[in-house]
Amino acid sequence: MEEEKRPILQFAPFQSVVDEGFWHRLSSLKLNELGIDDSPIPISGFYAPCSHPQVSNHLTLLSESLPSEASEKSSTSHGNRNRCWVPGTLYNTNTLETYHGLDKQALLKAEAKKIWDDIHSGKAVEDSTLLSRFLLISYADLKKWSFHYWFAFPALVLEPAATLNDIKPASQWFSSKEAESLSAACNEWRQMTATADVPFFLVSVKSDSSVSLRPLKDWELCDGDGQQVFVVGFYDPCHLPNNPGWPLRNLLALIAARWNINKVRFLCYRENRGFADLGLSLVGEALVSVPTGWRDHDCVPTAVGWELNRSKKGSRCISLAKTMDPTRLVVTAADLNLKLMRWRALPSLDLNVLFSVKCLLLGAGTLGCQVARMLMAWGVRKITLVDNGRVAVSNPLRQSLYTLDDCLNGGEYKAIAAVKSLKQIFPAVEAEAVVMSIPMPGHPISSQEEESVLNDCRRLHDLIDSHDVVFLLTDTRESRWLPTVLCATSNKITITAALGFDSFLVMRHGAGPFSLSINMSNLSLSENKGKHRLGCYFCNDVVAPIDSTANRTLDQQCTVTRPGLAPIASALAVELLVGILHHPNGAYAEAEHANVSLSASYERPLGILPHQIRGSLPQFSQITLVGHSSKSCTACSETVVSEYRNRGMEFVLQAINHPTYLEDLTGLTELMKSANTFDLDWDKDGDAIDDEDEFVEI
Amino acid sequence: MEEEKRPILQFAPFQSVVDEGFWHRLSSLKLNELGIDDSPIPISGFYAPCSHPQVSNHLTLLSESLPSEASEKSSTSHGNRNRCWVPGTLYNTNTLETYHGLDKQALLKAEAKKIWDDIHSGKAVEDSTLLSRFLLISYADLKKWSFHYWFAFPALVLEPAATLNDIKPASQWFSSKEAESLSAACNEWRQMTATADVPFFLVSVKSDSSVSLRPLKDWELCDGDGQQVFVVGFYDPCHLPNNPGWPLRNLLALIAARWNINKVRFLCYRENRGFADLGLSLVGEALVSVPTGWRDHDCVPTAVGWELNRSKKGSRCISLAKTMDPTRLVVTAADLNLKLMRWRALPSLDLNVLFSVKCLLLGAGTLGCQVARMLMAWGVRKITLVDNGRVAVSNPLRQSLYTLDDCLNGGEYKAIAAVKSLKQIFPAVEAEAVVMSIPMPGHPISSQEEESVLNDCRRLHDLIDSHDVVFLLTDTRESRWLPTVLCATSNKITITAALGFDSFLVMRHGAGPFSLSINMSNLSLSENKGKHRLGCYFCNDVVAPIDSTANRTLDQQCTVTRPGLAPIASALAVELLVGILHHPNGAYAEAEHANVSLSASYERPLGILPHQIRGSLPQFSQITLVGHSSKSCTACSETVVSEYRNRGMEFVLQAINHPTYLEDLTGLTELMKSANTFDLDWDKDGDAIDDEDEFVEI
Repeated sequence: MEEEKRPILQFAPFQSVVDEGFWHRLSSLKLNELGIDDSPIPISGFYAPCSHPQVSNHLTLLSESLPSEASEKSSTSHGNRNRCWVPGTLYNTNTLETYHGLDKQALLKAEAKKIWDDIHSGKAVEDSTLLSRFLLISYADLKKWSFHYWFAFPALVLEPAATLNDIKPASQWFSSKEAESLSAACNEWRQMTATADVPFFLVSVKSDSSVSLRPLKDWELCDGDGQQVFVVGFYDPCHLPNNPGWPLRNLLALIAARWNINKVRFLCYRENRGFADLGLSLVGEALVSVPTGWRDHDCVPTAVGWELNRSKKGSRCISLAKTMDPTRLVVTAADLNLKLMRWRALPSLDLNVLFSVKCLLLGAGTLGCQVARMLMAWGVRKITLVDNGRVAVSNPLRQSLYTLDDCLNGGEYKAIAAVKSLKQIFPAVEAEAVVMSIPMPGHPISSQEEESVLNDCRRLHDLIDSHDVVFLLTDTRESRWLPTVLCATSNKITITAALGFDSFLVMRHGAGPFSLSINMSNLSLSENKGKHRLGCYFCNDVVAPIDSTANRTLDQQCTVTRPGLAPIASALAVELLVGILHHPNGAYAEAEHANVSLSASYERPLGILPHQIRGSLPQFSQITLVGHSSKSCTACSETVVSEYRNRGMEFVLQAINHPTYLEDLTGLTELMKSANTFDLDWDKDGDAIDDEDEFVEI
Repeated sequence: MEEEKRPILQFAPFQSVVDEGFWHRLSSLKLNELGIDDSPIPISGFYAPCSHPQVSNHLTLLSESLPSEASEKSSTSHGNRNRCWVPGTLYNTNTLETYHGLDKQALLKAEAKKIWDDIHSGKAVEDSTLLSRFLLISYADLKKWSFHYWFAFPALVLEPAATLNDIKPASQWFSSKEAESLSAACNEWRQMTATADVPFFLVSVKSDSSVSLRPLKDWELCDGDGQQVFVVGFYDPCHLPNNPGWPLRNLLALIAARWNINKVRFLCYRENRGFADLGLSLVGEALVSVPTGWRDHDCVPTAVGWELNRSKKGSRCISLAKTMDPTRLVVTAADLNLKLMRWRALPSLDLNVLFSVKCLLLGAGTLGCQVARMLMAWGVRKITLVDNGRVAVSNPLRQSLYTLDDCLNGGEYKAIAAVKSLKQIFPAVEAEAVVMSIPMPGHPISSQEEESVLNDCRRLHDLIDSHDVVFLLTDTRESRWLPTVLCATSNKITITAALGFDSFLVMRHGAGPFSLSINMSNLSLSENKGKHRLGCYFCNDVVAPIDSTANRTLDQQCTVTRPGLAPIASALAVELLVGILHHPNGAYAEAEHANVSLSASYERPLGILPHQIRGSLPQFSQITLVGHSSKSCTACSETVVSEYRNRGMEFVLQAINHPTYLEDLTGLTELMKSANTFDLDWDKDGDAIDDEDEFVEI
């Protein structure tokens, strides 16, 4: 009779609180591991008994809420006394449309069914953490660092709703002796590792006023034990003086459905400074009737629980871009484009190789600037630029790292200006500038200059030694000679880009002449011996590099080229490097031609790894070709490398001062009498680019 | 007897004074007209009687000293009273080595021989300006704006040297009456146009103390007229109280060689404030003996005259870079690379077309940034960038006009940041930013948005109308639709660049469907009618452009591409434009394939003009192909363009709001039943890029 006047028992819902770390971890997980896989992910939420009115009803997600990444070894604990674990499920969609199109009713019902099943099976009695669950749907826009999301905290709905007989502070409900005992029992429960994060329990009050806390399953063991008064307790995240928090809902459902009790006394356990506070904690008595449908096991009760956003149902969105540390934001943004490649197009892309490879760029002109940009875009972060020139006023239009500011007061050194510019583009780049000249053969020097030139030689040697990759991008043919010798000696990946007026050459040098004996163990290719070594930039030449800058008219000095060439050649040079770095044989890889069978290219999704690429703007054409190493090469032949190894700087000095020395040494002087000595394979007939084009860098 | 004690007559040499304007004019002449032609050039020097001790012995070169450029119409006058003309010869070499290697003795001798011949022939008596000549050798380093140069003022050497009997101020030599008359005669001579710049003359002193000035040739007419005392006079640039200036040397040589006089009285005519000053002017008496060899006409007397540099013989060097107006310096530097192309490689390059063409870039992303850079490098100066986005932190690594500073505070608008960046590279660029969205078909809008979207349509229409070239570089297929319709309607040069993951497409759209009737008069190609019109970006599609951004995963949204693609595609897009602008038929040019015969490509040194270029990074390949226009094209077909012409904005709105409208209109809906309807010619078999690649911009 009175029932109708009794108030409905009302619960304060959970409020989601998501730490930024969660979103960062999610972003990282999505980018690095999940890719386009959008299967649901088990995640963890945390809550604790309320201990401060300002932190009420929080269900918190932290970075640990997500599965740890494969690369990390930390074991995730389910929780502790201040982070009681709530199992959750994350549905992170790939698109905003999918997110908005999710069937939220069905998802909630599926989650509620887990709770329902656990109640029926008794699992929820064994492990009461299963009584609270949550659901998170999200769409992570990693491009903008914004996250659309919506939480649900599924609660099984009692129909008719439970009503409230009474609710008051626990300190008023219990006698002072009981209260004292209860406090002690609670504090103990909260201190024991085994129980600290178990959010549901029984409060057993004996007639001697002693109170103990026991696990839920004890109800079923001790059912009917008349000596005890049982109260069901739960960690209440709520601070309100007249309402329990959300977890009680599913507990009542369990009690009604499983234990068939109509009058339930409950303890809303709350704390102050980490200890039980029975003044804040509530005890209430609810009247519950079991909905008729519940008798049927297949029935899943109605569930509610989608979180409100400013009192209305609604998705939330958070943007982290503004609060992120700018450098970190840039780094993650930079990685985004690369990591996205791995999702679908290029799963085998090895970003760690790119992140760690050390590249030395000789020349910071049109090619050097563009190559540096391309390297950064590919994720390369260790870049050293060598140049002795200063930025001139005609440079910025073609040399893409400079502006007019760099030309003031005589011009900044190009290497320094380039590094400054790279950092303005990507602050995490580890770029270094080296202002020095590259000694050149056939440019005789005076004895006063000798020490300084030899210092440059040694410095160049050290630079090449300490890098993995060397790009030859200087502005004369002869300035590529010493680097080529040094690279052949220390067997570095070496890439040359050179421009004619309207055609270009991009090539990788073959491994050094003494590399095979040392490195053959890495190779399965038995035929890769000596004669098949790929050539270097000088292998096709019948004259040694000499002073090519002398006596050149202005249009020859400025090495006039069509503006489109340098960006194309630079891009291909870097793509070629990425190919080498991903080839199992690296610098030792044999040359591949275009038109290779598709199946082979599927094995290496980056595509073929040619030796040389030549392109022609007038023909809008591009071909790959192979040139093997020449025994008379003035830069990479055994003779030359041996001489360098044996005589070092003395040899270099001789080459610098005596224009014919290299030709004499390598036998080129004799070879010049018979011209057709090259082993040059073209990969198609006809339309070869004029070989007499002089390729130089600008 | 006394002769040996008499002092040698010593002359103050000319000092060269070169106005910066001379070097600017020379640079311009070299770049624009001379190219590698290094033939000697007749030039003019100027001097005047000394009128200030600080301006002594100057021989001045001004911009007028050089021949006027063909493009200018100004007639060069030989001089005036303050700029008495001295004929000179410029040897401007192409290289520093040639400059240093010039045979200076021989050059000087050649110039001296001209003077000697003019003395012997009597020409120098008729026209006394021929007695002074000069010689300038130079090397203009137009890259650094520095000029190496050396002057010579050839003087025939009397052997033995002339000696001086006496020298004193003219005011002391002449009686006061004579002096008064002389002053008047000099002032009159200097005022008459016919004589003002005649630097050598006779002073005739009659017995009545009247003095007159007469031309040199009068000597030979009046030889032996006992009534007159003759003094030879010359405009003396020197201010020294005891020495005549340089011009007297060749005058004495003339007198000795031609008139056979041993005792010569000379007047060093000097001025003060523009009038004769006989206190500064000197009269001297020199004893001259004719060298024996001079009797022989074939003998050329020894000559001296290479200018000293700080008391030593030596070449001089001036750098103008520091004093030039920075913007002018930048503009000239920018032009340098382009103008040098015309010297040898590309004489037919039409820079005026490039300087004046107006380019509209739709999209300021990876492609837009790079295309703008390439355009500037080719000399294009009128660039408008359209984009509605802001610079995001992930952009600078691939979008080459932005740095991190552009990402602060939510990011600058891309169009605005790009324009700022272009100006930092080249301040003379006329770049404009337009922040607006491009309306897209199949993206239905609400009626509230309608007015704003239609405004965007009209604005886009006006933008396209006011430009010559439109680049389609936006980030979705459907945002290229309306610009394609508008370009086809107003018949603009239209270039599309689009990227897949590792392949790209660059193409020019065919002329509009109604262009042929209007423009056929320009064309000689009779077969170019309707059916052969080249296709547009949409001609190969069997579906109308619709919303492609909806429901795309992150890697699809970011349109992940290999970093090397965009620079290559952008470079080719701009090279393609340069080709169109240089083709006699422009946008109407037929498509050409690679492998065209070499003779044809020599006719147009820029090379072939293809319709489409497709490139593949995995294959390092590039092919050209042709696709003709489709009658069912949703963008450039007659049907669509007619609808736009007739219904304007109403038509656009229908396309925006009704995804199937365009397909219905063009008959595509029906066509989709039969698939192979395209007229697509590949220029080679095999290795075609997968047509199903979705090309999009990033």
